Amino acid sequence: MTARLSCGVIGLGRLGFRHAETLAGRIGNAKLEAVSDPDQERLNLFTSRFPAVLGFSDYREVLNAKNIDAVVIASPTDTHHRITMEAIRAGKRVFCEKPLTLDAEEARGIVRETEKYHAFVQVGFMRRFDPGYTVAKTRLDAGEIGDPVFVRCISRDPAPPPLEFARASGGLIQDLCIHDMDLSRWLLKSEAVRVYARGGVLMCRELEEIGDMDHADILLNFAGGAFCTIEGSRNARYGYDVWTEIVGTRGALFIGELHHTPAVLMTENGSQRDLMPWFLDRFERAYFEEMRNFVDHVLQDKEPAVTARDGLQAILMATAAKKSLETGMPLALNTAIRRDGYGSTNER
Amino acid sequence: MTARLSCGVIGLGRLGFRHAETLAGRIGNAKLEAVSDPDQERLNLFTSRFPAVLGFSDYREVLNAKNIDAVVIASPTDTHHRITMEAIRAGKRVFCEKPLTLDAEEARGIVRETEKYHAFVQVGFMRRFDPGYTVAKTRLDAGEIGDPVFVRCISRDPAPPPLEFARASGGLIQDLCIHDMDLSRWLLKSEAVRVYARGGVLMCRELEEIGDMDHADILLNFAGGAFCTIEGSRNARYGYDVWTEIVGTRGALFIGELHHTPAVLMTENGSQRDLMPWFLDRFERAYFEEMRNFVDHVLQDKEPAVTARDGLQAILMATAAKKSLETGMPLALNTAIRRDGYGSTNER
Amino acid sequence: MTARLSCGVIGLGRLGFRHAETLAGRIGNAKLEAVSDPDQERLNLFTSRFPAVLGFSDYREVLNAKNIDAVVIASPTDTHHRITMEAIRAGKRVFCEKPLTLDAEEARGIVRETEKYHAFVQVGFMRRFDPGYTVAKTRLDAGEIGDPVFVRCISRDPAPPPLEFARASGGLIQDLCIHDMDLSRWLLKSEAVRVYARGGVLMCRELEEIGDMDHADILLNFAGGAFCTIEGSRNARYGYDVWTEIVGTRGALFIGELHHTPAVLMTENGSQRDLMPWFLDRFERAYFEEMRNFVDHVLQDKEPAVTARDGLQAILMATAAKKSLETGMPLALNTAIRRDGYGSTNER
Amino acid sequence: MTARLSCGVIGLGRLGFRHAETLAGRIGNAKLEAVSDPDQERLNLFTSRFPAVLGFSDYREVLNAKNIDAVVIASPTDTHHRITMEAIRAGKRVFCEKPLTLDAEEARGIVRETEKYHAFVQVGFMRRFDPGYTVAKTRLDAGEIGDPVFVRCISRDPAPPPLEFARASGGLIQDLCIHDMDLSRWLLKSEAVRVYARGGVLMCRELEEIGDMDHADILLNFAGGAFCTIEGSRNARYGYDVWTEIVGTRGALFIGELHHTPAVLMTENGSQRDLMPWFLDRFERAYFEEMRNFVDHVLQDKEPAVTARDGLQAILMATAAKKSLETGMPLALNTAIRRDGYGSTNER
Repeated sequence: MTARLSCGVIGLGRLGFRHAETLAGRIGNAKLEAVSDPDQERLNLFTSRFPAVLGFSDYREVLNAKNIDAVVIASPTDTHHRITMEAIRAGKRVFCEKPLTLDAEEARGIVRETEKYHAFVQVGFMRRFDPGYTVAKTRLDAGEIGDPVFVRCISRDPAPPPLEFARASGGLIQDLCIHDMDLSRWLLKSEAVRVYARGGVLMCRELEEIGDMDHADILLNFAGGAFCTIEGSRNARYGYDVWTEIVGTRGALFIGELHHTPAVLMTENGSQRDLMPWFLDRFERAYFEEMRNFVDHVLQDKEPAVTARDGLQAILMATAAKKSLETGMPLALNTAIRRDGYGSTNER
Repeated sequence: MTARLSCGVIGLGRLGFRHAETLAGRIGNAKLEAVSDPDQERLNLFTSRFPAVLGFSDYREVLNAKNIDAVVIASPTDTHHRITMEAIRAGKRVFCEKPLTLDAEEARGIVRETEKYHAFVQVGFMRRFDPGYTVAKTRLDAGEIGDPVFVRCISRDPAPPPLEFARASGGLIQDLCIHDMDLSRWLLKSEAVRVYARGGVLMCRELEEIGDMDHADILLNFAGGAFCTIEGSRNARYGYDVWTEIVGTRGALFIGELHHTPAVLMTENGSQRDLMPWFLDRFERAYFEEMRNFVDHVLQDKEPAVTARDGLQAILMATAAKKSLETGMPLALNTAIRRDGYGSTNER
Repeated sequence: MTARLSCGVIGLGRLGFRHAETLAGRIGNAKLEAVSDPDQERLNLFTSRFPAVLGFSDYREVLNAKNIDAVVIASPTDTHHRITMEAIRAGKRVFCEKPLTLDAEEARGIVRETEKYHAFVQVGFMRRFDPGYTVAKTRLDAGEIGDPVFVRCISRDPAPPPLEFARASGGLIQDLCIHDMDLSRWLLKSEAVRVYARGGVLMCRELEEIGDMDHADILLNFAGGAFCTIEGSRNARYGYDVWTEIVGTRGALFIGELHHTPAVLMTENGSQRDLMPWFLDRFERAYFEEMRNFVDHVLQDKEPAVTARDGLQAILMATAAKKSLETGMPLALNTAIRRDGYGSTNER
Repeated sequence: MTARLSCGVIGLGRLGFRHAETLAGRIGNAKLEAVSDPDQERLNLFTSRFPAVLGFSDYREVLNAKNIDAVVIASPTDTHHRITMEAIRAGKRVFCEKPLTLDAEEARGIVRETEKYHAFVQVGFMRRFDPGYTVAKTRLDAGEIGDPVFVRCISRDPAPPPLEFARASGGLIQDLCIHDMDLSRWLLKSEAVRVYARGGVLMCRELEEIGDMDHADILLNFAGGAFCTIEGSRNARYGYDVWTEIVGTRGALFIGELHHTPAVLMTENGSQRDLMPWFLDRFERAYFEEMRNFVDHVLQDKEPAVTARDGLQAILMATAAKKSLETGMPLALNTAIRRDGYGSTNER
């Protein structure tokens, strides 16, 4: 492999477009060769800005391109399984947006395929690359707060997603809380063994029609004894609010940024600051570092920073949380494991 | 009743001593006549500082004193029921520290007695008097965040209580979380109808021996549809950390103060600030305002700001949370209601 | 001297009333015997709340009272010199509000008298007792930021004082900036040797009529080589804003608190917090600790924490700053010293 | 002119390299054609990462390239005048890093040439493009704090520059404080009429040898009556600290960000956060937006956002401040104006 990684991007939606821009212009050792999207308008918009990049309607043309070593899959979630499997078989290094799939069985299939072919498959849990989280993780692993015993995750969107997106997204837990499921495993270095979930619609009545929620509280117990709570919400009319706390035996770490710009207005009504408008603002740097990490790890023949198995474990947690929510009962995750084959020996 | 309220304080422990000092020297329209404590040393410590105040070993002498109109009961929790009942019957205006009792039946007895005699009985949920909470409540009630749909309460102590105290305190939920149970009702103006609790010992193994916990997560659903989550913890080795969030249909309110003094150290290791050491520091003003409010309301013949019924409702929530925790199952609070006679018509 | 200090308070204005309340009810080893004020209404207001305290129209009755060991002088500034001198001669321990005097010659007179009689005279620079400043001073003296080389002081009032008060106050520099002059000496443990001041009216035109200003910037050079800048302002319409920065060879210390209560409102307009309304809110604790320190130091026969000489030095700095402002020229403070006899050998 | 602006970058030092990367890969409507630097190593480093960009040792090749419409001049300050003049005459649109020149006469020459040829010359005061400053400026201009009457600017570097750089930079005032001189004019929409400066070496003794300082305080009076104070310092061992306050008749605006990542460590030693390491971190977004603005304004035939005249005015302020510092006396800037021809009618 040359010193520059030849890349393709499949899907030019919100995130795919961003990833493509990053690969085309901000990462020295990446070369974006082609992009694909069935939407001709998006395709034109991108290729007019980056004339050296080929644009295809059909993602298969990207997979078939001999000169492309790595692909970023940012197509709709329900296409992740098919395209990832095809990409692995086409010998590409793969970056797939989260969630890896909506279905645990499909995710297991990808894991199996990945391990069979020793393929490089990275899942897009970008928070792990945010400077706040990386600093916290470094301090945590250095023992600065002792052993972690409790993790609290809050993820609040300023508004519900468009109904069309929500319908295909797997819903609040699989679309949003799955970030925190990944974070909790990553921070605690342990797996969840018990889950209880409570959720519903507190504000966005339209989500009821499609069986989705705007608020969920998830309680997880981990194998190592630690507890975790996760709140996912679409109800933060004040802005985008992601906050994580890790309590350890000698201290705690808090990660979160509510404010957008460093300007404060002071009047007789008090002080006033703006708030984070959107996840692309909050995690702008994380998305960039994630791509840079993907390119570097492929070029240096390293393991992916976030593996297909990481993607699977988060899906299994999400699936169990949804089941607890439906039944209204706590759930031992080993029950879920048996049903889903999670961790079972025939897995590999 | 004269322009100054003649008061007695029963119990000179940590809080009783504070209340007595406040009444003796900081509240113009209060006059502290007597204090009582079976511990002669504490009694001497107080009366040597306030020679005009009488000191008794037996609380009954305070209750029997004709010139005393109002009593503050800050004796151990398991004596609250007895002394409160006697104080009501002695015609005193009563301020009783939280929790009103450990037992729901006893609390109901106090409520019945209070309503029968039209007695003045206030319960010591001092957070309602903290300037942070009063500002937030005013803004909430003014509709500044629309309708509240979610309340998150975090209460973290820097260390577990002494085992001796913990043994008699009713444990984490009745001693600590009960503050947030009261807050959630007060903020949401609604009653809880469903509860799920999860808890355990994450750090303080010694608490296991006495059947107590150092961490609990409680999920509550309210009659009006709102959700609430409460975390109670003894594990904040970094300091005393109480934090409340109220999410509404048009915004949110956050209440909390982590820092103790307004000094920041900046070095090549970053910025560093001290943290709140203890609840008496965090809620110093709240305890003062609470006493002032008690005195004013009695003198002006107003209803107590926090009633005996408020005390009972919080106990019923705590009792239900403990039951959910024991059974590992969610609990409809109306089940609890039936069993406890909570809200039943024969109550009054 | 007994275990309780018998005190009198002269002047029941804003601060005098506060000091009297503190001594009467919040300090165990103090006993307030008498207060005086020519205003009968204020006197009645106080004695009706504290019936055990005698009230006099004439401060001389306080000075003549044999049972009073210590007096707090909080009368108008132009009476400080006379009453302090009389109090020293009456053998009282003296606490005098800042500024000690408006006139350097008068202040020198007090210092001379104090040193001649080994009198106890404390000056009311209360900021030294604020927990923020005491924490910072402790860290500074412990070498946590290395050697201090620069101090920046900002003091902003939310509004100009009433014209009547302003007229007698000595103006912006002697009334307000004098706090920061004291702070800079205290923090740097050095004396100013050069001053330049610039000031004027930026907003409050009415102050022009009485020859006062609403904004001043003062640049000081200290004997040890450090620099200091002081901003005094009446123009902070947003609140009361006192901020101090100390830059050292290895770090810095910042002291300041803009917010009043720990409640934050979050809406689509951003986050909003209230601001500190007034110096009595910001420095409430400092005023309390200052009184406690005064009582303790007298009872324990210690030196005053803030001496008459501290009062004089601040006045000399203020006088020099005013002179620089009038002439528009920088001023070597030793010039001022010669003129004022500051530091000269015939001083004592 | 086509839809993409063909650009060249002259000088690949710290900032030139950054500008070249930005133009090459992050701005859709820019096309970087060539870069130049006498240092072959830097040149190779850049062209190996961007093979489509030509690299020259001699900047004249960039100026002579017919296909290049716009040049970014980021060469050493003492070459700005010569290259800018040549670029104007070569018909290029020019972006020149700050300061425009070190010498007022040379800056005037550039202004004259710019106005004679109706040339596009932008000066690199990037802070105007920082989201914090743009938000504040918008709120200021919308009247949210009334009329601005006072501006306080603090700019603290974490360390002195290398001596070699310092020697050619014009020193603390022309290199660092000039940013705040530009900010104050921009915010107040007025020109300075009086200046007093005080400065020296408080920590970095090595700067004395080359006649530079590590600390300066500059007091400015503006034509409209407003005051401004500027602190420039190399002594912030804790990090990079830029802070601006604007006080108006109805409120104030504060702009500043001390922290780098949104992670907080909480231990028994208090809370701890990291601090901003360096100006390239603090103003990363500003540098990007500045380039984007340059490209857009050229393509849309708009005036530069920061003009050559803005560059000149800041230099005149800096020159006057240096003169005040040398003489130790305040200086009417109209004196400076007469001497420098500043604002005189024969200027154009």
